[in-house]
Amino acid sequence: MSLLNDIQTGTETLIADDRFKDRVNYPQKKLRVKLGVDPTRPDLTFGHMVVLNKLRQFQDMGHQGILIIGDYTAMIGDPAGRSVLRPSLSKEEVQKNAETYLDQAYKILDRNRTEVHRNSQWFESMSFEECLNLSRRMTVARMLERDDFSKRYRGNIPISIVEFLYPLIQGYDSVMIKSDVELGGSDQLFNMLVGRKLQEEQGLIPQAVITTPLLVGLDGEKKMSKSSNNYIAFNDPPQEMFGKIMSINDDLMWDYYRLLLSTKDDEIDQMKKENHPMENKKHLAKSLVSQLYNPEISQYQLDNWNAVFSKNQVPNAMPEYFWEDRFSSKTQCVLTDLLSASNLFASKGAAKRLVQQGAIKVNGVKIIDPNSIWEKPVEPMVIQSGKRLFFRVIP
Amino acid sequence: MSLLNDIQTGTETLIADDRFKDRVNYPQKKLRVKLGVDPTRPDLTFGHMVVLNKLRQFQDMGHQGILIIGDYTAMIGDPAGRSVLRPSLSKEEVQKNAETYLDQAYKILDRNRTEVHRNSQWFESMSFEECLNLSRRMTVARMLERDDFSKRYRGNIPISIVEFLYPLIQGYDSVMIKSDVELGGSDQLFNMLVGRKLQEEQGLIPQAVITTPLLVGLDGEKKMSKSSNNYIAFNDPPQEMFGKIMSINDDLMWDYYRLLLSTKDDEIDQMKKENHPMENKKHLAKSLVSQLYNPEISQYQLDNWNAVFSKNQVPNAMPEYFWEDRFSSKTQCVLTDLLSASNLFASKGAAKRLVQQGAIKVNGVKIIDPNSIWEKPVEPMVIQSGKRLFFRVIP
Repeated sequence: MSLLNDIQTGTETLIADDRFKDRVNYPQKKLRVKLGVDPTRPDLTFGHMVVLNKLRQFQDMGHQGILIIGDYTAMIGDPAGRSVLRPSLSKEEVQKNAETYLDQAYKILDRNRTEVHRNSQWFESMSFEECLNLSRRMTVARMLERDDFSKRYRGNIPISIVEFLYPLIQGYDSVMIKSDVELGGSDQLFNMLVGRKLQEEQGLIPQAVITTPLLVGLDGEKKMSKSSNNYIAFNDPPQEMFGKIMSINDDLMWDYYRLLLSTKDDEIDQMKKENHPMENKKHLAKSLVSQLYNPEISQYQLDNWNAVFSKNQVPNAMPEYFWEDRFSSKTQCVLTDLLSASNLFASKGAAKRLVQQGAIKVNGVKIIDPNSIWEKPVEPMVIQSGKRLFFRVIP
Repeated sequence: MSLLNDIQTGTETLIADDRFKDRVNYPQKKLRVKLGVDPTRPDLTFGHMVVLNKLRQFQDMGHQGILIIGDYTAMIGDPAGRSVLRPSLSKEEVQKNAETYLDQAYKILDRNRTEVHRNSQWFESMSFEECLNLSRRMTVARMLERDDFSKRYRGNIPISIVEFLYPLIQGYDSVMIKSDVELGGSDQLFNMLVGRKLQEEQGLIPQAVITTPLLVGLDGEKKMSKSSNNYIAFNDPPQEMFGKIMSINDDLMWDYYRLLLSTKDDEIDQMKKENHPMENKKHLAKSLVSQLYNPEISQYQLDNWNAVFSKNQVPNAMPEYFWEDRFSSKTQCVLTDLLSASNLFASKGAAKRLVQQGAIKVNGVKIIDPNSIWEKPVEPMVIQSGKRLFFRVIP
């Protein structure tokens, strides 16, 4: 197998000339490999992991990773694949989100082979005129050829002109950092080709473009994304991450093996033959939690899982918080506040509904009044939601 | 007649609320009346005169004229009414054109009631981000509703994204100068409505909008414009201006009376009844040359016209140039260079063709060799092209 074959494994599209292919197969000069991520939400998800893994693969071959934190582009909002106008984010929201991105990315990337740029670095000092000059370099018709835009246009769903500028601005990053190759999900193909065009017009060698498939989310239907709320975040606590992976259906599991663990097809065939699906899924969950945390934590989660589901016990390990930290000197607290302080529920409203549905137990007793008042306990309290979610409140 | 009626005479569209109408009829506080002109070519034409007259009418009622020299917008190029992408102009070309605009505009406007702004004043210091923010304020669909854009889109004629930004940028001028009313040709209606919208979003009272009809050019068919080469320029020499006006057809003449001289319909009816069309046209030509130059010059042109056409004489007044100024120390010159140095021909090629067609006489003798060589004369030389065009070369 050539190195190029390795790089192409698990990708969808490769647009490159022979010169690029030679540089992959016979690495003498480092390639500059670009990956741009817009911090539109605070978390990276397993959807990002697909392309981060590909970048890591380049790094392991000795190449230079260039991570663009799109703090400027995030304020515009990438319209790719969108069916509605995205609300614009404020500078403050974006910067807050950007802060945590790097730590998350280094769970996959090789820190020593990663160069990091925020694209506000160049765009903030650019002028009105430079924006006009960029906008001159693309036609309306070319933009409306894009599937997502043409659907919205035909469906009378507003497209703001700023959305037509996004691909140009994203593409300009490639001019600034002189990338030799750009990686992205398959919904980024158009944007990355604009980068290629802008580089060429600027007299640079146009970047190669590699797309990876989009990971399907927990619902088994839509692309994993924060806005569809079908995602696993890098920052999910280990127990939650383990549980979410265990919840995906048996077919989808193999996509996750392929895209997140780069498992080869023959290994997959073998696993299918030799193991029960539940065992294969536990192995997937354990491997991924191990990658995002460490082997000890993932073993612990596996043991817990086995304990809860095999013997219907209360697990040993569970998230916990201290009463003092959340409620300081208060001596009483309403149940929904106790629940929402764990950060394990989507919202206070969601927690309330779970109580009303009879899904919540406190120290093993079902409680159905969300407004019931609880004294600060003397012993740790164990709170359970449904079958799998446990946490502890420590006095 | 109310003042508002006077203002509406000779206009096509008035978009305004009652408050504006009151301020026209009972002028206590000056209205700020905006007119924007992009210096895309060095000359103002009689097409501009229609709307300049309207602005002058406001000034005569005591209001403040605001003339925007669109030196920034000219670099983008107004796509209104265009069927193809306009080539972009350099800063240098635009500034060169802008320099002469003011002197030309003051042939119509009241200098003491005119405030002048170049829109580069505000746009040059604006940032990339402000451009994005503007572009957020309009949708693609709204732009493609415009007749000119939709025709180009359906006809697969490229529309650059920068052309979608033009109306926003032009409209932003209204925000900057806080105009109460904007004047423009009927092809400017969309742009001026964008100005209204931007003002409103910015918390200002939206400007009234008044459009004037487009003047048809010398060809009797197309809108007068520099790009169609069917225009009369403010800077045309008096003889040329007089001749061009005399060349328009008898029907079109009345539009010129109405739009350029604000002649009322009953006066027109009377002139039609009482005078021969040729007399009416001479009166039009004399009035307009008088307005752009002065009564003496226009009388002189009329006398010359009568002399040439009634008696087939050489006119007394004609353009002239000095041999020294054009050819410095040269003692000989080719005929086409002699002709083109007068600046009275569209190009050297056009002059050459006229010679070959037998239209050129030198001192009364027809010359058909465009390459014939002429010595620096001792006496002034009279050169004649066709029946009407004469000029003199002075040794």
